[in-house]
Amino acid sequence: MKLNCDLGESFGQYSLGCDEQAMPVIDMANIACGFHASDPNVMAQTLSLAKLHNVEIGAHPSYPDRQGFGRRSMHLSNTELTNLLHFQIATLEGMAKVQGLSLSYVKPHGALYNDMMANSELLNTIAQAIASYPCELKLMVLSRVNNSQAIQIAQKAGIELLFEVFADRQYTPDGSLVSRNLAGAVHDETKLLEQVSELKQFGTITTRDGSKLTLQCDSLCVHGDNPSAVAQIAKIKQIIGSNE
Amino acid sequence: MKLNCDLGESFGQYSLGCDEQAMPVIDMANIACGFHASDPNVMAQTLSLAKLHNVEIGAHPSYPDRQGFGRRSMHLSNTELTNLLHFQIATLEGMAKVQGLSLSYVKPHGALYNDMMANSELLNTIAQAIASYPCELKLMVLSRVNNSQAIQIAQKAGIELLFEVFADRQYTPDGSLVSRNLAGAVHDETKLLEQVSELKQFGTITTRDGSKLTLQCDSLCVHGDNPSAVAQIAKIKQIIGSNE
Amino acid sequence: MKLNCDLGESFGQYSLGCDEQAMPVIDMANIACGFHASDPNVMAQTLSLAKLHNVEIGAHPSYPDRQGFGRRSMHLSNTELTNLLHFQIATLEGMAKVQGLSLSYVKPHGALYNDMMANSELLNTIAQAIASYPCELKLMVLSRVNNSQAIQIAQKAGIELLFEVFADRQYTPDGSLVSRNLAGAVHDETKLLEQVSELKQFGTITTRDGSKLTLQCDSLCVHGDNPSAVAQIAKIKQIIGSNE
Amino acid sequence: MKLNCDLGESFGQYSLGCDEQAMPVIDMANIACGFHASDPNVMAQTLSLAKLHNVEIGAHPSYPDRQGFGRRSMHLSNTELTNLLHFQIATLEGMAKVQGLSLSYVKPHGALYNDMMANSELLNTIAQAIASYPCELKLMVLSRVNNSQAIQIAQKAGIELLFEVFADRQYTPDGSLVSRNLAGAVHDETKLLEQVSELKQFGTITTRDGSKLTLQCDSLCVHGDNPSAVAQIAKIKQIIGSNE
Repeated sequence: MKLNCDLGESFGQYSLGCDEQAMPVIDMANIACGFHASDPNVMAQTLSLAKLHNVEIGAHPSYPDRQGFGRRSMHLSNTELTNLLHFQIATLEGMAKVQGLSLSYVKPHGALYNDMMANSELLNTIAQAIASYPCELKLMVLSRVNNSQAIQIAQKAGIELLFEVFADRQYTPDGSLVSRNLAGAVHDETKLLEQVSELKQFGTITTRDGSKLTLQCDSLCVHGDNPSAVAQIAKIKQIIGSNE
Repeated sequence: MKLNCDLGESFGQYSLGCDEQAMPVIDMANIACGFHASDPNVMAQTLSLAKLHNVEIGAHPSYPDRQGFGRRSMHLSNTELTNLLHFQIATLEGMAKVQGLSLSYVKPHGALYNDMMANSELLNTIAQAIASYPCELKLMVLSRVNNSQAIQIAQKAGIELLFEVFADRQYTPDGSLVSRNLAGAVHDETKLLEQVSELKQFGTITTRDGSKLTLQCDSLCVHGDNPSAVAQIAKIKQIIGSNE
Repeated sequence: MKLNCDLGESFGQYSLGCDEQAMPVIDMANIACGFHASDPNVMAQTLSLAKLHNVEIGAHPSYPDRQGFGRRSMHLSNTELTNLLHFQIATLEGMAKVQGLSLSYVKPHGALYNDMMANSELLNTIAQAIASYPCELKLMVLSRVNNSQAIQIAQKAGIELLFEVFADRQYTPDGSLVSRNLAGAVHDETKLLEQVSELKQFGTITTRDGSKLTLQCDSLCVHGDNPSAVAQIAKIKQIIGSNE
Repeated sequence: MKLNCDLGESFGQYSLGCDEQAMPVIDMANIACGFHASDPNVMAQTLSLAKLHNVEIGAHPSYPDRQGFGRRSMHLSNTELTNLLHFQIATLEGMAKVQGLSLSYVKPHGALYNDMMANSELLNTIAQAIASYPCELKLMVLSRVNNSQAIQIAQKAGIELLFEVFADRQYTPDGSLVSRNLAGAVHDETKLLEQVSELKQFGTITTRDGSKLTLQCDSLCVHGDNPSAVAQIAKIKQIIGSNE
């Protein structure tokens, strides 16, 4: 159960996240590609940091909305979205290659991720875009109770999926994330560590109403936004044990 | 003597240049990478057009200044410029790869091109940036009477140069372009064709004061901005003959 | 029945629309504010042209999406939208003031206009944003069979509305515009002039299914995108007669 | 001797500076206008904070370079610069008006400020741009040993100047700021407070080589980037006493 984390989201003069502290303790870095965050300098530095700590890297593409940090949904045609993904993957892939690194997966960011999980046509467009990029790249998606539709779309496209579970988010009984607007949607540290513990031991999550969900988990999403989030990663690692 | 032309400079709703007419009659397309012009859709379309007409493709990177079309000089550090070039080359290279194409050269755009020719430190930074990109890419520069400094910088970096001559621009006796602000700086069709003719027959250019320059010419820069510019390309091709 | 037209939509090196031809023949210029199109230079030039021809000016604000020309819907909070409108109105108002001009109205652009007509909460946010801007500004909206909801929202906000009818668009029986995706949605010149004629004489529009709609029309929307569109404006003016 | 401080430099998801702590302890807020930093939401919040603490407000316009935070010099024509300044002043002026506030001055930011102090033609263009904006606005410039050229340019344009001195920067004997690249260019707190003390008591500054400069000081530039900078402002205020 690998830990993935969004990194490389600084921009110009603006610093965001504790990348230097988080990178050494994670397994997979979702690296921003210059549309919701990042710029050529930040990308080069983030890739260099990933290389130093031997962390697997993935592209973290977004809608073209820097002011909204990629969190505002936009209506794009399938062709626009495909080109937008190719552009962002290409950018990170080439800059990684400069440092001798390869991408292994793509995880859409923010509103694009949410829209992908809510709309199977969008998921299909994204899967096809990744399949048509000439590198072997997996697509990271939210693990749900029933992943069969996502699996079917990925198989049709000829790509592999990575299913991720969120360490800090409360789940609904049907396996979606509880909206951030509701109280209890984001776990405090105690509940977060309990959720990870249960997932590790039993492969289940306790939902908002107390019921249990069985979720496939290839990767656990953690955060590196601030020092206390980074400190939690160490505690999570103690629970899940070595990845070796 | 191959013909190179700036293409792919449309953006969103904005159309610029006669790409569909120019692409079939040129040999090398300098393709914008999204900083002075272009966007993911325009890049995909331009690459597709280059593929259709079997045209050699090069990256045409720029300062980050869309409003100024890359024509306003900016002061960047060497690291900033290196990352900026890697970003733009990577983007075009990856999107080309999606269509089964490879880049073969880089030609800086606008103010970046002029600054490179005026400042050997900048030329060195650009040469090193291209050398550190893990594809074999040549650098296109302005051919001058004495190209030895440029050649030395390129050799040190381990890259090859392509020397270009401008079909439509008047030259000074020392082999620079006459400033566009001066009368006669841009040739009319008659003078343009005479300049090409002389270059083809004798390898020389007649300068503003009537003296002759011998210029190395690997490629001739032509324009596809408007229908009459495209019509001139056909006439230029008649003069220089087949490239086969 | 005044003629309004979108103008000032060039950007940097990119020229769009026949502003110099269209400005002399229209009554109201909807001027882009730098988000879907335009820049400080284009705004200054467009305002200067409006001044020369004594044309009434309105702000034409948009979603922040230059690549998509403001035609892609975005989900903004009410506060974000209010600030976005204040920013764009302020910019044009101040630049107009430099030339001794005043704004008299606001017409949202593209997807923002469509979303406003489809969503009364958005219309309310826009009306309130305009009311809270300390100039007397009207809001231009699409005239429909029943304008009572729009009128109620405007009255609550304390602003006046301008109802516009499109000269070149086919209407549905319920008074919306026929989607551009359907055949016949955009009239040829003959039908366009017939539609204007009927509106002038009888105050009605013949819809897609042949039924008649009575539409309030404070202003007729015309286009200046190309020479033939500009030529149509003269023919429209002959039909509707002088505005004096 | 009023204290001025750069504020409102956050952007979207990116937070920069301790605006909430700094605003209550300064006299004049230099507010970013959306080109090197800020966005419509940040501008509205910053203006609201200035209103709450009754702080005088000025526009802090910049070159169009968000990635470089306005710190990279760009070559603009006089017309481009004039329109760029009008755009930014207009935006802030209109958004201020929404909150019942008025601008009283303009202080160029970053590279634009430095270029203005190094190039009298640029200073003249900026002074003329401010003069042609239809509000009474002063221009804040660096106070030097000999301010006569700046005064002459301002008088010709018909605007007033505000001369500022930097609390934390070492000066050269000829009254420029020592380059940040040199050791000792930025004072530690002890030296900073000594510099303020000397300026308050004697109207002089001790330069890098120990000589004394007499500098006109209408305003002292202080910083609010971090908690310790804000804490220094309180100490500076104790030295210079109440502004009442």
